[in-house]
Amino acid sequence: MTLSSTSPKLQRWKVIIEYDGTNYVGWQRQKDDMSVQQAVEEAVEKLSGETVTLHTAGRTDAGVHALGQVAHFDLEKDLEPRNIRDGINHLLYKHSIAILSAEPVPSEFHARFDAKKRYYSYHLTANRRAPAIIDGNRCWRIKHSLDVDAMHIAAQHLIGKHDFSTFRDAECQAKSPIKTIDTIKVYERDDLMTMGQHIFIDVCATSFLHHQIRNITGTLKLVGEAKWTSDDVKKALEKCDRTQGGPTAPPQGLYFMRVDY
Amino acid sequence: MTLSSTSPKLQRWKVIIEYDGTNYVGWQRQKDDMSVQQAVEEAVEKLSGETVTLHTAGRTDAGVHALGQVAHFDLEKDLEPRNIRDGINHLLYKHSIAILSAEPVPSEFHARFDAKKRYYSYHLTANRRAPAIIDGNRCWRIKHSLDVDAMHIAAQHLIGKHDFSTFRDAECQAKSPIKTIDTIKVYERDDLMTMGQHIFIDVCATSFLHHQIRNITGTLKLVGEAKWTSDDVKKALEKCDRTQGGPTAPPQGLYFMRVDY
Repeated sequence: MTLSSTSPKLQRWKVIIEYDGTNYVGWQRQKDDMSVQQAVEEAVEKLSGETVTLHTAGRTDAGVHALGQVAHFDLEKDLEPRNIRDGINHLLYKHSIAILSAEPVPSEFHARFDAKKRYYSYHLTANRRAPAIIDGNRCWRIKHSLDVDAMHIAAQHLIGKHDFSTFRDAECQAKSPIKTIDTIKVYERDDLMTMGQHIFIDVCATSFLHHQIRNITGTLKLVGEAKWTSDDVKKALEKCDRTQGGPTAPPQGLYFMRVDY
Repeated sequence: MTLSSTSPKLQRWKVIIEYDGTNYVGWQRQKDDMSVQQAVEEAVEKLSGETVTLHTAGRTDAGVHALGQVAHFDLEKDLEPRNIRDGINHLLYKHSIAILSAEPVPSEFHARFDAKKRYYSYHLTANRRAPAIIDGNRCWRIKHSLDVDAMHIAAQHLIGKHDFSTFRDAECQAKSPIKTIDTIKVYERDDLMTMGQHIFIDVCATSFLHHQIRNITGTLKLVGEAKWTSDDVKKALEKCDRTQGGPTAPPQGLYFMRVDY
């Protein structure tokens, strides 16, 4: 009898997760407060009776949302994909978290290391004096209007491989500040139901530094207000110094959209 | 000295209000629980030091939202429109209610009686097994997909002047069940960020019966599921009997969009 035939067979599962990050300390487990990771792990453990660890494609901050977060975990118990999905969702009923899909994957699959492209979107509601209500906690509300075209033009300086130290949080644990932004698009949508100028910043890259998109957004807002020029963004990037960048945009406008593998 | 010169001069104000109805018993004041009306009246009273009554274009049910509810009230105190708007919003900071605009209007203006057209929209998220999260409490989530074209075709039977008893709540206080629906449009949007088949039912009429749109929506859902035909809707309408209509759709998908005066 070989070792492999006696050890329990583990099945790796890939799940796609949607959450409203408002009431969580972020993705990652923390000692005292509820994280998305802890909520989902506890649901999987209740469902399966097994202890699991979720590995995720991206550790979102407190207040940041996800429409297509990806994570994986291993289970001994033999379950159908829809039973995993529906069973976890049933146990998450008190949470603002849902499993959109569950799929068995080869044991080599890794949600974090195999991610080829990550997509984020930042939603600003500008030109709105009143607080955001229907979109409350789900956008960055700005009282005045913003120059979207100027923001988009300035954003194009950030495309490509750069030292992004200017947009990197002091607590960032990445080994290097060098990242490559594939695309960054700033555009307005006039088809949303709520009042205001709805601006979206869509960014795609293989990986990001901590707070990179929120720091970019805070900087592009300065361009939208005509406080900075497009050239100021280019110069700030070249200085490779966080103190030269704009402020950090608040978390509630940021959405982790999806991952390509 | 005439009476008019000694009595305090009242200014009538028209306000447009957005709210998330989740945590309210509806528009109308009730004894024990918080209503949208009470929340706004208390804010106006704190701002002005005067006792006010808000008259509204439409009394929404508990859980129903508004993007463009209209109300009026009278104030002695002389205030700028933006100070009314920002002042009320400041005092509403704990509420999911905001004043989008405040406008002085002639004292003959009446938010309810002068309304020429009222617009509602009902949002269903179909073909989604997972609970709605980002749209949680703001749509009716249906597990299976719905036939939108069939729903739209069936809905056209409801256009025009009819006895809408089939879609009228038992508690409706309207004098007559006769109403005229100007337009009703059922359509799908594929440009929303969240997963699912996003279906909207837009309805315009001068006025509505209690639960009329929710009862119509519950009936059209039966058509979307192919449980009812378009002809069944026509026959149900003609029976003028609530027991012949479909079930009442839940409140959280309904939005009071705007009013034409």
